Amino acid sequence: MEENNPREIEAKSMRMIDEEIGNLNCTEAERKTIKRVVHASADTDLATKVSFSPGAAEKAQKLIREGADIITDVTMLKSGINERKLAQYGGELKCFIRDEKVMEAAEKTGLTRSIMAVRKAAKLPGKKIFAIGNAPTALFELLRLNEEENLKIDFIVGTPVGFVGAAESKEELMQSDIPHISLEGRKGGSAIAASIVNSILYMMGD
Amino acid sequence: MEENNPREIEAKSMRMIDEEIGNLNCTEAERKTIKRVVHASADTDLATKVSFSPGAAEKAQKLIREGADIITDVTMLKSGINERKLAQYGGELKCFIRDEKVMEAAEKTGLTRSIMAVRKAAKLPGKKIFAIGNAPTALFELLRLNEEENLKIDFIVGTPVGFVGAAESKEELMQSDIPHISLEGRKGGSAIAASIVNSILYMMGD
Repeated sequence: MEENNPREIEAKSMRMIDEEIGNLNCTEAERKTIKRVVHASADTDLATKVSFSPGAAEKAQKLIREGADIITDVTMLKSGINERKLAQYGGELKCFIRDEKVMEAAEKTGLTRSIMAVRKAAKLPGKKIFAIGNAPTALFELLRLNEEENLKIDFIVGTPVGFVGAAESKEELMQSDIPHISLEGRKGGSAIAASIVNSILYMMGD
Repeated sequence: MEENNPREIEAKSMRMIDEEIGNLNCTEAERKTIKRVVHASADTDLATKVSFSPGAAEKAQKLIREGADIITDVTMLKSGINERKLAQYGGELKCFIRDEKVMEAAEKTGLTRSIMAVRKAAKLPGKKIFAIGNAPTALFELLRLNEEENLKIDFIVGTPVGFVGAAESKEELMQSDIPHISLEGRKGGSAIAASIVNSILYMMGD
């Protein structure tokens, strides 16, 4: 009755997803990412909500090939990304939410740790892909740094979830000049952000 | 415009959730868990899908007070649970998915690592709460161990997500004699499982 072979389960899931989402007006690479998002959420409604800046998957892959690090807003998202695959290209997976200085600064200012964590990360040297699955405040801060502080943000996978600010922060990302993959509306989360990042890594082959 | 104080953001979110989900036929404790699930998913449809065995929250709290460990199916879920809070009662947060013997056994049998990981965990001494956010196969295996191998499973937070087996495994859990909190349908995931476990920990006060 139930299936126990992980490869068969995934293949069967992907066939069901293909059937249920039907035709979409998107590139082959975009469809692969969309299928991973639906796979992670079991929410077929999201198939038409994933938003890509032009050539987003290719841009993210180029950054990864150049050794970009991936910075996550929360440790849960960090746990969901295929670190081994990223390491093949020299990049590291990082999260500063539990960094001591970040925690002190958040305490002192009353701002979220997520804000302080991305502020710290954005100022580090090197190429970076930000993956924001949880905190709208982190995404707003990246947009502000890009706009007001002239800190060019290379790429954002931005899918914060929630009732306060999540949809608005993603809307602003979609309007920005930052290369991105995002999701319309309130839904999102770490699993979805991880599925997007992993879809990009998996498309890169071995 | 956007809010940056984490306590205010959470309080505002919870007020919005209260308003949107309206009256539910459930206990005060159940409502707290349901609100956390909606908060984690931004999916108000889930408010009526969370399923509790009788007195589930109280049973889970009793286990935690007795020093139960919490065993997760995947590391992503482990990252999402408040470990510090659990440690106050002597319990540990554990996940065996990357355990060397588990990986070897999965390779040898062609079964999922999730199956092998819960099989190992269930045979350890001591009280345990299983939190299954991802793998239907892990949940099916726990149900089998409970039924066929007479390994009494104390409690399951079971919210695997997906197209193959997820809804069916949760349905079987809801029909079982194992104390549980679960979610009807295909949706679920690590963030939802974490939100349920954390809601129980947060209700325990300091």
